[in-house]
Amino acid sequence: MKHLLSIADLDAAGITLLMDEADRFADSLRDREVKKLPTLRGRTVFTLFYENSTRTRSSFETAGKWMSADVINISASSSSVKKGESLKDTALTLRAIGADAIIMRHPSSGAARQVANWVGQGSDGISVLNAGDGSHEHPTQALLDAVTLRNRLGTLDGAHVVIVGDILHSRVARSNALLLTALGVDVTFVAPRTLLAPGIEHWVNPHPGSTGTVRISHDMDEAIATADAVMMLRVQAERMDGGFFPSHREYATRYGLSAARLESLKDDAIVLHPGPMLRGMEINDAVADAPQTVVLDQVTAGVHVRMAALFTLLVGTDGGDGDTVGAGATAGENR
Amino acid sequence: MKHLLSIADLDAAGITLLMDEADRFADSLRDREVKKLPTLRGRTVFTLFYENSTRTRSSFETAGKWMSADVINISASSSSVKKGESLKDTALTLRAIGADAIIMRHPSSGAARQVANWVGQGSDGISVLNAGDGSHEHPTQALLDAVTLRNRLGTLDGAHVVIVGDILHSRVARSNALLLTALGVDVTFVAPRTLLAPGIEHWVNPHPGSTGTVRISHDMDEAIATADAVMMLRVQAERMDGGFFPSHREYATRYGLSAARLESLKDDAIVLHPGPMLRGMEINDAVADAPQTVVLDQVTAGVHVRMAALFTLLVGTDGGDGDTVGAGATAGENR
Amino acid sequence: MKHLLSIADLDAAGITLLMDEADRFADSLRDREVKKLPTLRGRTVFTLFYENSTRTRSSFETAGKWMSADVINISASSSSVKKGESLKDTALTLRAIGADAIIMRHPSSGAARQVANWVGQGSDGISVLNAGDGSHEHPTQALLDAVTLRNRLGTLDGAHVVIVGDILHSRVARSNALLLTALGVDVTFVAPRTLLAPGIEHWVNPHPGSTGTVRISHDMDEAIATADAVMMLRVQAERMDGGFFPSHREYATRYGLSAARLESLKDDAIVLHPGPMLRGMEINDAVADAPQTVVLDQVTAGVHVRMAALFTLLVGTDGGDGDTVGAGATAGENR
Repeated sequence: MKHLLSIADLDAAGITLLMDEADRFADSLRDREVKKLPTLRGRTVFTLFYENSTRTRSSFETAGKWMSADVINISASSSSVKKGESLKDTALTLRAIGADAIIMRHPSSGAARQVANWVGQGSDGISVLNAGDGSHEHPTQALLDAVTLRNRLGTLDGAHVVIVGDILHSRVARSNALLLTALGVDVTFVAPRTLLAPGIEHWVNPHPGSTGTVRISHDMDEAIATADAVMMLRVQAERMDGGFFPSHREYATRYGLSAARLESLKDDAIVLHPGPMLRGMEINDAVADAPQTVVLDQVTAGVHVRMAALFTLLVGTDGGDGDTVGAGATAGENR
Repeated sequence: MKHLLSIADLDAAGITLLMDEADRFADSLRDREVKKLPTLRGRTVFTLFYENSTRTRSSFETAGKWMSADVINISASSSSVKKGESLKDTALTLRAIGADAIIMRHPSSGAARQVANWVGQGSDGISVLNAGDGSHEHPTQALLDAVTLRNRLGTLDGAHVVIVGDILHSRVARSNALLLTALGVDVTFVAPRTLLAPGIEHWVNPHPGSTGTVRISHDMDEAIATADAVMMLRVQAERMDGGFFPSHREYATRYGLSAARLESLKDDAIVLHPGPMLRGMEINDAVADAPQTVVLDQVTAGVHVRMAALFTLLVGTDGGDGDTVGAGATAGENR
Repeated sequence: MKHLLSIADLDAAGITLLMDEADRFADSLRDREVKKLPTLRGRTVFTLFYENSTRTRSSFETAGKWMSADVINISASSSSVKKGESLKDTALTLRAIGADAIIMRHPSSGAARQVANWVGQGSDGISVLNAGDGSHEHPTQALLDAVTLRNRLGTLDGAHVVIVGDILHSRVARSNALLLTALGVDVTFVAPRTLLAPGIEHWVNPHPGSTGTVRISHDMDEAIATADAVMMLRVQAERMDGGFFPSHREYATRYGLSAARLESLKDDAIVLHPGPMLRGMEINDAVADAPQTVVLDQVTAGVHVRMAALFTLLVGTDGGDGDTVGAGATAGENR
């Protein structure tokens, strides 16, 4: 695996490999006093964020540093972009400086793949990790959601996951649907008509063996009654041009996760949210803090997933050996 | 000690413990070629600054890095706060990412304690360090001032320290008064009436054994005549709504530390300023560079105090053993 | 060598020493799996940037981290400058925090030298590296250009380098002329009359033994016909007050490096650009990607030059021993 650009690139095996690696990192860190692995010592990782993000950038930064990588942050506001440099030239420059990987967030769908085409080819190609590209994909988010679901539900095959909210603008929804259907999950999208992306019923993992399904519902109460997990999306006010969105009050009533709706869930159902949460908007304040809500488990899984992704792209895995070299390894001074 | 939120939480023993630890770090670093201790290797420290600060943030960052911690910076301008996330959720997220400590600056008084209540309880509680909360407290500033005073004056007990300027908005003034009175210092505040906080005469350390006193004066010349140290405060123009402040010229005349006033000090008296200084405003240009002015000693002590604080909170001390584990330790590869 | 402020301070020997050291770092890194040297372990380096720059700041940051220094970034937007602190006090503060070197970029010509005067004197003096000061100098840029030229051309003595564009505002042009003339290069400046700095014909390295020459041409085609290298400058729109600049179209026609002009170069001539490039403005899109264009080699050389500079200033070299202590060294745990 050279890049992590899109869940659509991965089949069930590729997805499961990353999830298993994440679990191994979690186990490995849990046991050790000093949370520092030598795995990526001497590797240089750039974060290149054209959109702000506390949690994603610092989660990747933590993942890199815990594996002893050098992590260098670049944000758009301080970048050469302001001087008119093209994205291509910026990316080529980072490779020439010595980046082994570029972790990038960009407002344009497909930006990460473009960058991978520019800097990831050939013998001197480096790795690109998509940390969110427009309304397209956010693969590490879907992976951390899946790790959290699997840890809580035991298995994903045959589960029913309901994703509620602003599907139209949500790279999180798309990456999740592409991942979950590969692992046999039935996904129901619940959203106002104006916030449903066209063609959403085709957000099924394209690889052979994907047995999960996707359907659309406008009745949240009906959908969540059979859910094993409800994933609330953030209302992305900053992506909206206005006009096609219900009022805040109407939204909260029809598509918010209220205490009453939490009550109506199956006993062992869980609630996810990619964060940042808008309490009182898409999720009730008390619901956000309820024991079924696994938001903070998601955050923790995020660091492990990003360690797994960086490790897999930069060091690689080959079956059982991967276990040894990766999370399980304790080499040299850090033993 | 789990958190460092307020000097008011500490009695003379707790204050002295941190000051002594800071001195030990200073001694330890002075002797070694390679200024790098393994003390916090594998620990992850976040700085979370909702107000800008060169010196405090980079002083904490230096302190953490010199002890081999991973330090990750988050500034409000790039944070999820902009997307509407609550302070509580931001703090819980940082803990879930894997923070061992959050160093935070926030414009609201009490913000650090709130965060400590949210993330610092129970077996998975992490440490919170207050790097300035509104006009409430700035404990590491008071500690570094005290370390500097003790190094110069020999002892603090019975000393007279005059604090001049914008007391009303000054977390530095409050933390200093709470610290100095615990160690037997008599504090005089000098300020225009409009810049005196109500109840200022009660800014005495609340713990038993505090023998220092606090009084107010509006006559700077009278107050500084008997001072062992004069602490000038920065005129915090950005905190002012206007109206209750004298003109700049009048302020400089009545409350600025002029060359003539420097002359009138006792021979061995020293001048402190928390920085950044506004030369020509609260402090004369030549006075800022005078040998009695220990501003840069304060800065240096700041790194040692922050090392002491991080070490004490994250590793702990228990008497003599603390010496060994802390600044005095030279373990493994870093010996 | 204590500071790196200006190429004018260096004679051919000093320049060559830094270039050779850069080449040694390049060789050393090429051979090793783990790109991490212990060279500056325990040293603390601050970047203090009053102007934004992706490539220069992150190149220095990479250089420092690859030598195991602690690197702490300060940008003007978050600095105490906003609170009215003087540059002098900021610099003195960084030294008091524990900086071993300050790498600074500032819009005022001479700022780096001023800072060196303030913090670089005496036994506790620290090193200052000029990463660009107004329209004065940018010494590491000239060094990385020279390293790139030497690697491609074999030797610099007797070469002809044409520098095209906004000479008036270009610290890059000045530093290059001062460096190249020291090594026997004949430099031709090509620019519109309004973008030529007065006295440009005196931009010859002032030290004995400088045999290179400087001349001015307004005919780009004539100048580049005999060039061994053409260095295109970025059109620094942000430095212009307007009025003295031709229209964009006219500029591109008269002073842009078109595909036709690339054709007219000598067979083995190369094209340089300090970046960020404005494709279609000073350099044609296809030319920017042509094999003769060594822009990315320049970027890579930049990291090596900055490693060489930091190493030379902070650790020093003394002849053959320098080889051992510097890039060639592999000490302790990193062996």
